[in-house]
Order: sequence, then structure tokens, then C-alpha cells
Amino acid sequence: MIKKDAHTQHISKKFNKEMEELKSHVLEMGGMVETQVHDAIQSLVEADSALAESVKRNDKSVNVMEVSIDEECAKILALRQPAASDLRLVLTVSKTITDLERIGDEAEKIAKQAIQLTESGQAPRGYVEIRHIGEQVKRMTSDALDAFARFDAESALAVAQKDKVVDMEYSSAMRELVTFMMEDPRSISRVLNIIWALRSLERIGDHARNIAEHVIYLTYGKDVRHIGLKKMAEHVEAKK
Amino acid sequence: MIKKDAHTQHISKKFNKEMEELKSHVLEMGGMVETQVHDAIQSLVEADSALAESVKRNDKSVNVMEVSIDEECAKILALRQPAASDLRLVLTVSKTITDLERIGDEAEKIAKQAIQLTESGQAPRGYVEIRHIGEQVKRMTSDALDAFARFDAESALAVAQKDKVVDMEYSSAMRELVTFMMEDPRSISRVLNIIWALRSLERIGDHARNIAEHVIYLTYGKDVRHIGLKKMAEHVEAKK
Repeated sequence: MIKKDAHTQHISKKFNKEMEELKSHVLEMGGMVETQVHDAIQSLVEADSALAESVKRNDKSVNVMEVSIDEECAKILALRQPAASDLRLVLTVSKTITDLERIGDEAEKIAKQAIQLTESGQAPRGYVEIRHIGEQVKRMTSDALDAFARFDAESALAVAQKDKVVDMEYSSAMRELVTFMMEDPRSISRVLNIIWALRSLERIGDHARNIAEHVIYLTYGKDVRHIGLKKMAEHVEAKK
Repeated sequence: MIKKDAHTQHISKKFNKEMEELKSHVLEMGGMVETQVHDAIQSLVEADSALAESVKRNDKSVNVMEVSIDEECAKILALRQPAASDLRLVLTVSKTITDLERIGDEAEKIAKQAIQLTESGQAPRGYVEIRHIGEQVKRMTSDALDAFARFDAESALAVAQKDKVVDMEYSSAMRELVTFMMEDPRSISRVLNIIWALRSLERIGDHARNIAEHVIYLTYGKDVRHIGLKKMAEHVEAKK
């Protein structure tokens, strides 16, 4: 198991600084993406098209950040030839920013649904679910980033576990909204906007879970993707 | 610009072999994923639940392949400390397999819709669109993998350009299906199964485009994500 200061113990002060900067750039990108998700949800539930437009605009900055951090990773790999836990950090960062960028994309998609809803009028249902599931995936994203900052595999595990709850609540919200559409076909188009936004929130939960899995790899060197929550918990327990 | 034999010119024959194997594992995983997409579409349009079940089962092999290729990449980075175009190949592989795995996930989602449709009865609309858009994203996936195998940035550019066509056709199919649901609310649930499958196909197109962008990076060292098709075409033209 490695600790969060493991990457600043090199003889080269410059290398220490580069690794610190890499980490802090990821957290900076994470902060941007958290704001995007928050604003996208807000723009939808408040029917605030100006806010939704700003989410669409700001997605560009998230993309720029992804490309720039990827360049940083490639440079460190080429010039520093990191090994062991340093290499793991760089690989984790490279995967994590892909997920962060996708979370940003989903926020942009939610903002687009928000804009359509300000044009067509509010949907008759689904806002409670958007708020509720929205709160949960925002929390998951922020917890996954905290777990990354602190190399905290146990918190990361909790994020992955929470994704299952979100998936269940998403399915139940979907069933309800489909039933509602059948009863009120005139609202189909607007309810679909809500459904797409919910789908994006559910995807954000998936990406937060991915980041959490990267953090477990970073901390313990064990790739826990695709092995199921039970085995994942066993691995984290065993390493404690 | 690098050519496809650039990674087999090392003094170390073992390193040459490792790089060749890495490439061929990606293509093997690509072949698996292509089959998954093909079978998923087939299971949906033919209402073949046995085939759909086999797609769900086979997704596990795709996941295993992703984890194993990622380990290969980490090993090469740690032991060979590759530079320049070798490093680019490893980074490209690492990103490409993430997209391949996601394509596999989308195929699995299509198979799940197929199973629901064999239970609830065929949808009244949408099969023509599934076939048509399905053919296109299958072709895009296979062309992106060919471009990877041949380090062919021009073919990769063509894949990215085709994604725009698919997105337009997807939007037009969606509008039609929403209109149909309003006219025939009893079919909402089944038409939604088709809509989810179409959404998955559209996502497969996005991932094929991502792979194409990785190939352009691999060939020219230029990161062309998020810069738009026009600029991407200019870069590829300039390097020809």
C-alpha cells in the first residue's frame, strides 16, 4: 500500500514538484467538472437557460484541461521513466481524466436538455428524481476525487458501492416516468428530456465509480475493474 | 510521421516481439468487440434471445482482455521505459482498449434490449434504423481498427468524419420514433427499447471516432481530440 506522500520522496526536487503538480491539476480539473455537474442540474431544475449556456461553453475548458494533463503524463513517462508507484500514479491520472472529461460531456448533455425544456415548457414530472439522483452522483464524484487526493481505497470502495444504489433508483425513476408517459402522451417529448438527463446522471455515477476503481489500483496496485463489488470489498479489507 | 513497422526496429528482439504482441492483442480484442456488436444487432432484429444471452456472457471475455492488455502496457512502461513513437503506441493502446471495452458494454446493453423485446413482443417501428445505423457503426469500428493496424491517419480521419453522419441519422430516427410514440402510446415501452438500442449504436460510433483520434495521435503525435473535424482534416492533410 502506498501513501499520499509517496510521490514526493525523490532525490530530484523537480520530479517531486512535477508529481505534485500532476495531482493538483487532476484535482483542479475535478473541481471544474463538479461545478459543471452542479450547474447543469441547477439549470435544469430552475429552467435557467443562461446557466445552461454557460455549462455548454465551459465544457471547452474541461477538454483543454484533459489534453494538457495527458501531455503532462506523456512528458513524465518519456523524461522521468517512472517505476512502481510513480508509474501507477501517472497511469491512474491518465485514466481518471478520461472519466472526468466524460462526466463533463454528460453535464453538457444535461444542459442541452435544460435548454430544450426552457423552450418547450417544464416537464410535468421527474424533477424530484433529478434533484435526488443528482445530489447522489455529485457526492460520488466529489468523494471519488477526495479518495484520489488522499489515496484512500476505503472511501473509493464506498463510492463504488453507492453506484449500485444510484442504478437502482435510476431504474425505478425510469419505470415511473414511462408509466406516466403512457397516461399522458402529450408530455412524451418533455418527459424524454428528463429521461435523457437522468440517464446522464446515471452515467456520471458510473464514471465516478470508474475513478474510485482507479484509486484502488493506485493505492494497492490491484486492478479491481469488472470483478464485482463483493470481491472488490474483500481486496480492500485484506489490504487494510 | 511513423510507419507501422516502427516498433519492430529495436536491437532487442524481445522488445520487438512485445510491441508486436501488444498490437496484435488490441486487434484480437477489437475482433471480439466487432463480433459482439454484430451479434447484439442480430439478436435484436431477429428477436433471438439465445444470441442475446451469449452476447451478455461474452462481455466478460472482453473485460478480461482489457485488464490483461492494460497490465501488458504497465509492464512495458516499467521494464522497457519506451520513448518517442514506442511510448505513443503504448499510450494509444491504453486509451484504445478503454474505448473497445465501452463498445463491448454498449453491445451488451443492446442485447439486454433485445431480450426485453423478445419478452414483450416486437416494437412496431425502428428496425430499419437499427439495421442501417448498426451497419454504419460496425463499419466505423472495423475501419478504426484497420487504421490502427496500418497506422493510417487518413482512414482514421474518414472514420471521424463518418461519425457526424451517424449522429445526424440518429437524431432524425429519434424524432420519428418520438412522433410515433405520441400517436401510439401503447407501444411506448417497446419503442423505448429501440430508442435505447439506437442510443447505444450512436455511442459505439462515438467510441470508434475516439479510436480514430488515437490513431491520428499515434501516427503524427498530434492530439486531435476536441479540435473539430475541420482542423483535424487540416492537420492530417498538412502531414501527408
